[in-house]
Amino acid sequence: MADKYDVLGIGNAIVDVLTRADDEFLKGRGLAKGGMQLIDAVEAENLYAAMGPGIEISGGSAANTISGLASFGAETGFIGTVQSDQLGKVFRHDISALGVDYVTPARTEGDPTARCLILVTPDGERTMNTFLGASQTLGPGDVNEDDIAKADIVYLEGYLFDPAPAKEAFYKAARLTHKHGGRVALTLSDSFCVDRHREEFRVLVNDEVDILFANEAEIISLYEVSSFDEACEKVRRDCPLGVLTRSADGAVITSKDKISQVPAKHVEQVVDTTGAGDLFAAGFLYGLSRKLPWLDCARLGAMAAAEVISHMGARPETSLMDLAKSDRLV
Amino acid sequence: MADKYDVLGIGNAIVDVLTRADDEFLKGRGLAKGGMQLIDAVEAENLYAAMGPGIEISGGSAANTISGLASFGAETGFIGTVQSDQLGKVFRHDISALGVDYVTPARTEGDPTARCLILVTPDGERTMNTFLGASQTLGPGDVNEDDIAKADIVYLEGYLFDPAPAKEAFYKAARLTHKHGGRVALTLSDSFCVDRHREEFRVLVNDEVDILFANEAEIISLYEVSSFDEACEKVRRDCPLGVLTRSADGAVITSKDKISQVPAKHVEQVVDTTGAGDLFAAGFLYGLSRKLPWLDCARLGAMAAAEVISHMGARPETSLMDLAKSDRLV
Repeated sequence: MADKYDVLGIGNAIVDVLTRADDEFLKGRGLAKGGMQLIDAVEAENLYAAMGPGIEISGGSAANTISGLASFGAETGFIGTVQSDQLGKVFRHDISALGVDYVTPARTEGDPTARCLILVTPDGERTMNTFLGASQTLGPGDVNEDDIAKADIVYLEGYLFDPAPAKEAFYKAARLTHKHGGRVALTLSDSFCVDRHREEFRVLVNDEVDILFANEAEIISLYEVSSFDEACEKVRRDCPLGVLTRSADGAVITSKDKISQVPAKHVEQVVDTTGAGDLFAAGFLYGLSRKLPWLDCARLGAMAAAEVISHMGARPETSLMDLAKSDRLV
Repeated sequence: MADKYDVLGIGNAIVDVLTRADDEFLKGRGLAKGGMQLIDAVEAENLYAAMGPGIEISGGSAANTISGLASFGAETGFIGTVQSDQLGKVFRHDISALGVDYVTPARTEGDPTARCLILVTPDGERTMNTFLGASQTLGPGDVNEDDIAKADIVYLEGYLFDPAPAKEAFYKAARLTHKHGGRVALTLSDSFCVDRHREEFRVLVNDEVDILFANEAEIISLYEVSSFDEACEKVRRDCPLGVLTRSADGAVITSKDKISQVPAKHVEQVVDTTGAGDLFAAGFLYGLSRKLPWLDCARLGAMAAAEVISHMGARPETSLMDLAKSDRLV
């Protein structure tokens, strides 16, 4: 176990099941392309039975970010809940193999490990259908003050707002982080997730969040404004540091003082966008942990996002530290 | 359930766990690069704990071939045994989702579903470590005459010779296939596997096998000759149709009358060679099922092999029928 964490992540512990699907398949099942919807056990069985052969790769938004940070060589920890089943063992192995302290013991009864059925369309876009399973049992009891006290940054995913006990865990973690002098980072996760929890997110961003990650759709939804520029102005007012991603159009960094832009990194072929935002956050947070200027942090983010969209799955397939060295970003 | 099978496969039902590793890792653990070794449950735990994050994708040699055939649109069935656990469900889903009749019920007690821990080195070569688990319980009782009677070709993997009851199942299937007028196809699977069972394989090839698939190392090992050309002459004598693959050097088709060559299909970047031979066999057998000339069968094989080595995992990620159409091979 590490003495200090550059970043401690708290999020849903999920194994992704990725398959290729065409737009007709999405339409036929009424699925909103690019989004994340929650499904129950029966819906999960039905969708799985209807979809093509899968590839299982560990996922979960904050877990992807923490895995990316570990691949850069940062000291990291993760809090999230799996069941003691085969997929739970897969999740634990994959995150631990990167050197992450995965501190939450597996549940021994109740729902199986969470899975996200991800339909990847020919344009590389992913549409996610999440059965939260054991993951939604995450509660305040899983957030230990000793772990939080070790962290410079505690990174929280907006998806935690969906199950009630996880939201409680979220607030507890934010409170403890500030008590121990750390910073709270939040990713808004998904524009539909923002729709579900808009008022609470606004209060949270204003009161508790030191570093906010969001994409264009999410930040526009949060503030219910008509343009990205308007949203940027709102974030500057509410939050010390905003990291706003715009897919191929790069990223915008906002602070009280200024707004800066960084271009996206060119990718030969976008295979699967799953995890793009998660890995952008990983690169950015790694830069912050090394006290790099924000623009360099964003370049690391763009690099990590480019790696993850060039193959199936939301976890890096290559050492991000090696990539950063060969790109002369560190 | 189909009335007729173009090909019925019998093999180990395995989920692959793929990870990237460097040559040092293989050396440090004394693993023979490019080979397949059998490991027990304890060795599997130890190796899994030592290796990096994994990607789970259904595998198994004959199962890969049958999946490839289904992706071409052939009528197919599969016999092989999983446990009724999460990985067993993954295996069943993936092969069934392609339209394969997977006729063997899951075991309900005993070892968990088989897994193969595959280390992919930077050159794209794969080194396989197989825990056979529930797969090695395959026995003659799993081979039903009704299924065999429906098949034009019964495809068997050499790996079945490792567990004794599977070998019995193998002989029963071969006998029943000929009784019902079908053809027996065999892949030698692996040169180490040939070493373990050389004498039995030689008798089998001579007496029972109508179509033999092998790569260069396997066929040289089978006949203990010093050159590929010598091996080709031996195969011609023993077996009506030999399909011999030589990686980037293409394939050689042998029969009593002649020996023909087909070049490999160029691949921009070899990502992972897992399943290359299995998918070559899939393309070749699909061509046979459509009564195409052998050289066209081999071109379909080369195309399917090229698809599978361009990404991680031994199952096609793209419809092979669509690919064959766009390559004007059908």
